[in-house]
Amino acid sequence: MLSEIRDYARSALRDDLVAAAIVSVLLIPQSLAYALLAGLPPQVGLYASLLPLVAYAALGSSPLLCVGPVAVLALMISQALAHVPADVGPQAGALVLAAEVGLLLAAAAWLRLDALASLLSVPVLHGFETGATLSIALSQLPLLLGAPVRGSNLPQLVGAWWRAPSAWQPLTALYGGGALLALWLARRHAGRALARWMSVSRATLLVRLAPLAVLMLAVGAATLTDAGTHGVALVGALPELAPRIGLPPLAAALWWQLLPSALLVALVTFVSSLVVAESLGRRQGTRVEPRRELAGLAAANLAAALSSGMPVAGSFSRSVVSLDAGTRTRMAGVFTALFMALAIVLLARPLAALPAAVLAATIIIAVLSVLDWRPFRQAWLYSRSEGVLMSVVAALTLLQGVAWALGVGVAASIALLLQRTARPHVALIGRVAGTEHFRNVGRHEVQLTPGVMALRIDESLLFTNARQLVDVVQQQLAQASGTQRLVLLMSPVNRIDFSGLAALRALHDTLAARGIRLDLSEVKGPVLDALHAGGWSQWFAGRVFLSHHQAMVDAAGP
Amino acid sequence: MLSEIRDYARSALRDDLVAAAIVSVLLIPQSLAYALLAGLPPQVGLYASLLPLVAYAALGSSPLLCVGPVAVLALMISQALAHVPADVGPQAGALVLAAEVGLLLAAAAWLRLDALASLLSVPVLHGFETGATLSIALSQLPLLLGAPVRGSNLPQLVGAWWRAPSAWQPLTALYGGGALLALWLARRHAGRALARWMSVSRATLLVRLAPLAVLMLAVGAATLTDAGTHGVALVGALPELAPRIGLPPLAAALWWQLLPSALLVALVTFVSSLVVAESLGRRQGTRVEPRRELAGLAAANLAAALSSGMPVAGSFSRSVVSLDAGTRTRMAGVFTALFMALAIVLLARPLAALPAAVLAATIIIAVLSVLDWRPFRQAWLYSRSEGVLMSVVAALTLLQGVAWALGVGVAASIALLLQRTARPHVALIGRVAGTEHFRNVGRHEVQLTPGVMALRIDESLLFTNARQLVDVVQQQLAQASGTQRLVLLMSPVNRIDFSGLAALRALHDTLAARGIRLDLSEVKGPVLDALHAGGWSQWFAGRVFLSHHQAMVDAAGP
Repeated sequence: MLSEIRDYARSALRDDLVAAAIVSVLLIPQSLAYALLAGLPPQVGLYASLLPLVAYAALGSSPLLCVGPVAVLALMISQALAHVPADVGPQAGALVLAAEVGLLLAAAAWLRLDALASLLSVPVLHGFETGATLSIALSQLPLLLGAPVRGSNLPQLVGAWWRAPSAWQPLTALYGGGALLALWLARRHAGRALARWMSVSRATLLVRLAPLAVLMLAVGAATLTDAGTHGVALVGALPELAPRIGLPPLAAALWWQLLPSALLVALVTFVSSLVVAESLGRRQGTRVEPRRELAGLAAANLAAALSSGMPVAGSFSRSVVSLDAGTRTRMAGVFTALFMALAIVLLARPLAALPAAVLAATIIIAVLSVLDWRPFRQAWLYSRSEGVLMSVVAALTLLQGVAWALGVGVAASIALLLQRTARPHVALIGRVAGTEHFRNVGRHEVQLTPGVMALRIDESLLFTNARQLVDVVQQQLAQASGTQRLVLLMSPVNRIDFSGLAALRALHDTLAARGIRLDLSEVKGPVLDALHAGGWSQWFAGRVFLSHHQAMVDAAGP
Repeated sequence: MLSEIRDYARSALRDDLVAAAIVSVLLIPQSLAYALLAGLPPQVGLYASLLPLVAYAALGSSPLLCVGPVAVLALMISQALAHVPADVGPQAGALVLAAEVGLLLAAAAWLRLDALASLLSVPVLHGFETGATLSIALSQLPLLLGAPVRGSNLPQLVGAWWRAPSAWQPLTALYGGGALLALWLARRHAGRALARWMSVSRATLLVRLAPLAVLMLAVGAATLTDAGTHGVALVGALPELAPRIGLPPLAAALWWQLLPSALLVALVTFVSSLVVAESLGRRQGTRVEPRRELAGLAAANLAAALSSGMPVAGSFSRSVVSLDAGTRTRMAGVFTALFMALAIVLLARPLAALPAAVLAATIIIAVLSVLDWRPFRQAWLYSRSEGVLMSVVAALTLLQGVAWALGVGVAASIALLLQRTARPHVALIGRVAGTEHFRNVGRHEVQLTPGVMALRIDESLLFTNARQLVDVVQQQLAQASGTQRLVLLMSPVNRIDFSGLAALRALHDTLAARGIRLDLSEVKGPVLDALHAGGWSQWFAGRVFLSHHQAMVDAAGP
């Protein structure tokens, strides 16, 4: 960080300042809206957009990642805090949650557990994000229409609406619907329309100012018409201009209660931030270090816990804007925090008159822009089971909640992996005429050697498939009488665990009892090392050939 | 079964009858002892040795597997029934447990879930069996000495002994110690000593009668000295000569309470029986069909539930004896059941006078003969982590209980597998001079082609390692500047899941951005099929070569 500050060139300073200003314009409404979505007072979102950004800039690795309140996390926070006792209050719960997430991420960084990120496979992560996006958009609909209906998943919302169907407020709906329409038009059509009168870059800049402009217009309209007295819910006065700095509540029961949620929030924080940083980093040509990401996100969450914030992560929508706006270094995050501090001072009073429905419109537009249905089709075409998994996780997130969806998703990913290692593809192989190459009899024109069977089992020998090895080979042998030698091509065998070793020995002994010799070919170095360490030379009577060609020449005899 | 009965030759009849008689001699004391070990009245063990054997013979597949009460299951039953309400009683609990195990096994047979057997890897299974064996032997020590101390794991036993250190009974200890010594001498030395005076086969037969002889001697001595009135605990009168046939209690709460235990008992029943049937089947040359084993064991347990029994499985010690004794068909099981029925009628009265300490000695000798420490050493030498796993599972079984040990064991097996797929071995490969074969640069003398890097990643591309693929390749590229082409040798890649596909695409795009072309060689048929189905031709710009040799010839240019 220090060396980076010293080398910090003036051109980078200008680029980072411009980008930070643009990101701040997006962050102001989002931070307020995501705090409300999480069931917290709006100023908590603003506080979470100050020190956490500086902390990430100090320890993180990605120049592009815009840390702060994000929609998916807000949904998880609202579900986590749903059962916090009323006398504790959601704000204290959010601080404890942020502290736990920070400590868990710091522990993961220290214990080098960044590989745990791989627990969330692409189908699970995309299914979860899609389901969460839909949940968030749906949860904002009542706010948009002024209905007193709350819930964090579809059944809760539908049930509440069913009980109070007519409870919506026309004036609020006017604000919400108007804002939604304005934001949608700005995002969809304004850029092209403006580009007729001005340069594309200036048009893009104007479009980016649209959310702030909509906010200001709504504040103006609500103030002029005195909307609050006509039943429109307003954001209301933000009580303190500066966050209270201090330790989160240290009640053991509360910490224990929130720990399971914190584990999930930490996992999602890390994985979703890493995915954003990596995919955008590839476009920019910068490398992301998972361990430094863990450290940066840990610091950001601890900073949030100490400064009246809420759990934070890297935001996809803001990071994309940051990349487009030409961010060069992590100093942009520090500048964003400074702009946010300025915004709090300048905007605290006017924001009090902002109708909450306008913030709901901001959220809906922000999350729906991230919605992407193509991976569902791609996953389905590539692998039926993974396509189904993606849809199931999305549906569970929408219908049941985040914890269930992620738990089922991770367990199902692991079960699919185990199931596939348990049923390996087995190929009878023969020589491609005139070469030293051996291929599947069913797919290529190959030559076989009488009395010699050559098999390729396309899987490591693991406990999941060990028990079937003897059976699979015996089934093949039953179709080829007069076999005197079996050669296993071992190039697909990346590992043999202790159960696999026992199975190999059982196969060896079974074949020996039938007078059939077992040879191995193309055994990988690490696998052969392990076999020798395990003392297999005491029972293995066959030979190991460097190439399958040599094994077949030997088998064909002199 | 019917066709088998028709073809049943007279010589097989004689062999099966002899073997059944020998197995029955072993089964009488074991069935009584294991019922006591499970915390049930002794006659339950006898009942579980009647109809279940016939049911298995009708539906099972192994001629050798001796089904009935087994020690490991008895330990699991005693732990499962520890929390059954007192007004229900252990006998009703055992019936429900047997019914649940039978239904679970039947469901597994119907749904073709025999692959679930592979969940218990060799380290977990052997560690569990060792720990259970030690637990069982330890739990019998107080009975052997006449101490009123009970417990099903080590801390419970030590704690109970600590509280009542001097509560043992010298006369009981005399019976127990005497029986232990006699059985040990018979097993260890009697065979060789007797062989001096008679043929080896006759000596073996006499040795096999030793347990029954010890029982009879103890009954005689206890009756003559009126041991019961001197404080020696006796088996006591067996209340009914015939089992009560009827449905087990149908209380929903009891079924729910015992379901988790039943899942574990069903898994252990299936796996341990399958292991015995397969390993002995290999010696005899008979094949075992896992699905029929499931059906046979399901039938046996349901029969036990309907006839006042307890959960049953295949016994290793009795099956070995059965193999030695020359069993030919599953009819031996039916004959064993008939002999047991006869034994109940003849022995019910004398057995009442049997000191329980003698049964404890029978258990200790039976289970300790199965103890095998060599796999611990072998596993440790072959793979440190699997050796540790085996020891941990054994220790947990001894110290904590069966459910914990199996749960931790299965989870740790899966975690080890995931962890290893997450960290694949990566080899830079080159041509072995004068051949078309390519090997690891670090292990073989090979030739490299300038400007071309050839890598072999020894693992399928799965969600566990997908996120690291780009990083791993970039690390290799950093050590070889001027690379224009990267060839991935795909022979170790047995599968590419959807996350792996995304990683491959990310690698392709990253390399393309650096002006490096990505080629693949030796992609397996099923993997290539999946890639085509997933529409990869839309983005993949490189070529796929049938052999790595061809890829390198192409890369070297004309």
